[in-house]
Amino acid sequence: MTQLTISGDSGSGNCLKVKFIADRLGIPYRWIETSVVKAETRTAEFLALNPAGQVPLVVLADGRRLAQSNAIMLYLAEGSDLVPTDAFDRALMFQWLFWEQYSHETAIAVRRYHKFFLNKPDTEIDPALMPKCERALAIMNDHLAARTYFVAERLSLADVALVAYTRFSHEAGLDLAHWPKVRAWVQRIERDLGLKTALPAT
Amino acid sequence: MTQLTISGDSGSGNCLKVKFIADRLGIPYRWIETSVVKAETRTAEFLALNPAGQVPLVVLADGRRLAQSNAIMLYLAEGSDLVPTDAFDRALMFQWLFWEQYSHETAIAVRRYHKFFLNKPDTEIDPALMPKCERALAIMNDHLAARTYFVAERLSLADVALVAYTRFSHEAGLDLAHWPKVRAWVQRIERDLGLKTALPAT
Repeated sequence: MTQLTISGDSGSGNCLKVKFIADRLGIPYRWIETSVVKAETRTAEFLALNPAGQVPLVVLADGRRLAQSNAIMLYLAEGSDLVPTDAFDRALMFQWLFWEQYSHETAIAVRRYHKFFLNKPDTEIDPALMPKCERALAIMNDHLAARTYFVAERLSLADVALVAYTRFSHEAGLDLAHWPKVRAWVQRIERDLGLKTALPAT
Repeated sequence: MTQLTISGDSGSGNCLKVKFIADRLGIPYRWIETSVVKAETRTAEFLALNPAGQVPLVVLADGRRLAQSNAIMLYLAEGSDLVPTDAFDRALMFQWLFWEQYSHETAIAVRRYHKFFLNKPDTEIDPALMPKCERALAIMNDHLAARTYFVAERLSLADVALVAYTRFSHEAGLDLAHWPKVRAWVQRIERDLGLKTALPAT
């Protein structure tokens, strides 16, 4: 084995982040589809690779393993134009990466998982999730009021991390028409990454 | 104002991370005590500084603001011996920083908040939190089975981030005697950081 292996679920924004970065930077990889819904991340075989039982997981050509979507992106993209060189801009990028995992993914990705992948009716989904989703989108919309990108007015890992689930907001039950700056930014980042839009037609 | 300002709650592990790093690196700062329980992070004045309504928040001498504990640590510690220079070791440090915020803080810090700060009886605390705490500690204990530090066998930001709430595990209702490698590592990191131990006597 001479290349990067990515174990990922192609329905997961966290996993797609890694694919987006590898594709953009021209890094060759082998994708091993690993279903979260089917609990393929909880088999003894997978847990031996990543005890946290989470995808994405990358295995380098020499066998070393790395988990956590944002850590993998940072590893692959270091030295590229996706990581600011200015120390404070880098710090702001980190700020948004941690905010994404703590306050955004835990709302939008989790609500999407229950609604779209587990097909639960709204009444069976934790009612605390919807206001948390709305708050995350409002914070993003305000930040984008006078900005084109999240950090330093150029595409960075902060945008890639945040777009990963934001572009699937409708599958979490949210209509981005309420957050127009976010909607326009999603289209911009999808275009920058060469992606077919995931947004529903208006 | 010519120095760093840290707005933080001194009961919060996330806020103490920033204090530990500034103290260790000899970075002068002014600490502005900001209580989470008293909702001082949700006043209009604070939200104007950090729309996410979270501490810690640092304000640099020139007025620029930075949020998210792990992002602040990275900013302050870049170039120090707390951040590995090897690219893969850095990536592993990032992996643990993101895991800490996603899978550890959301279990141990949250259960501690409800139990210790809000004084809720166990029956009123989300029952999903305890197994999540135990799983996080088990992952750490296994990782430390043959290691002294989390990454590259030396103190890094990964240890500082993870120790911040682990040392208060008993306030979350957990007895580290069940995870002896974790307990020994907490004592090691507290000693490295020059802290009086937060662990209860055995």
